[in-house]
Amino acid sequence: MKLHGYFRSSTTYRMRIALNLKGLDYEVVPVNLLHSEQKDAAFTSRNAFGSVPMLEAGGRDRAQSMAMLEWLDEAYPERPLMPAGIEDRYTARELAYAIATELHAPLNLPVLKYLKDPLGHDQDTVSTWYRHWLARTLDPLEARLAQLGTGDFLFAAPGFFEAVLLPQVYNARRFTFDFSNKPHISRIESACLTMSEFQRANPDNQPDNPEFSGHERNPT
Amino acid sequence: MKLHGYFRSSTTYRMRIALNLKGLDYEVVPVNLLHSEQKDAAFTSRNAFGSVPMLEAGGRDRAQSMAMLEWLDEAYPERPLMPAGIEDRYTARELAYAIATELHAPLNLPVLKYLKDPLGHDQDTVSTWYRHWLARTLDPLEARLAQLGTGDFLFAAPGFFEAVLLPQVYNARRFTFDFSNKPHISRIESACLTMSEFQRANPDNQPDNPEFSGHERNPT
Repeated sequence: MKLHGYFRSSTTYRMRIALNLKGLDYEVVPVNLLHSEQKDAAFTSRNAFGSVPMLEAGGRDRAQSMAMLEWLDEAYPERPLMPAGIEDRYTARELAYAIATELHAPLNLPVLKYLKDPLGHDQDTVSTWYRHWLARTLDPLEARLAQLGTGDFLFAAPGFFEAVLLPQVYNARRFTFDFSNKPHISRIESACLTMSEFQRANPDNQPDNPEFSGHERNPT
Repeated sequence: MKLHGYFRSSTTYRMRIALNLKGLDYEVVPVNLLHSEQKDAAFTSRNAFGSVPMLEAGGRDRAQSMAMLEWLDEAYPERPLMPAGIEDRYTARELAYAIATELHAPLNLPVLKYLKDPLGHDQDTVSTWYRHWLARTLDPLEARLAQLGTGDFLFAAPGFFEAVLLPQVYNARRFTFDFSNKPHISRIESACLTMSEFQRANPDNQPDNPEFSGHERNPT
């Protein structure tokens, strides 16, 4: 498999976590979003959406990270990302899709760029926007985790939900989002960051990160 | 089942289509978004996200429409929304999640409201924003449908993808989006709108639509 992506892209980070949790080997192919390489014809001819991640796997080029996550569990049933029972699967999806459908897009690079140009807003306004939408999904998400009595992970082991949550938390911390009233999310974050599968997936440890030292750091 | 929602909410409309396609009976419980009824304590105590749709089914209150669609197919395998093969399922999800994860959120009411207040933009700027994000996902979606050689539906019968597509097309037409260069999307729309399952789901035919005459109209 080849994972075409960008170290800081939260959807690429999702895929790295998921592939690591499933124990699947993959080669990383960097696509520099700051140079708009995802809009090059060589790339869009393979992925019409012009977005990362793109996963070369099973004889085709795949776009859309949530569809890839669902596909990985169907194509490679070993080490499932999703719990076994229908009701638990619903719960995993409810929380993961809250992030993927409500939170991801307003925080995505193209939207942030549009706020600056053409809309003319400054970085402070963009950062306030960012934290506004974070709170709007992470507040009820924290409430749901409390209702569910969640421990270190949503279920016995991290999977579908944690693969979607951790990249969003990483980005939130870059925007100095306050997690002091998010004990459940913070506990899940801490538990995941002790695991090699998450450490190896971390943006800080990717070869295309200009700040990467060549030695993996424990991001806790 | 009880579907709590709003006639014009695209995610509620998704659920109406899906439930109709599966032949499942449900009662509609209107939640007036213009009066912010989804933020009432009586509602948020049942759905922490304070969002519609909420589906009362299988002994619990469910939030997040994409998780509900996936759950419906697992809990009620008859008349599946999703095709049978793993690769076709990936394709259905790729196209549906492109809309659900990239397109839905920037067009959602809370984001449009935020653009007006606090950001201070007028309706023209909001409409331009709306059409900008529509084009950004519907252009490559049309390209993907052409690549796949899509006919009246993505697969033999409408399902997961069409349930997500049609509400977005309905909203796009309200914002006078130009579909003249979208023959595949337009053909799927036309084919779906001939079907009772889609007609009964249409916002024009919902009791909580103030313009509803009491008689279903064919929305074609």
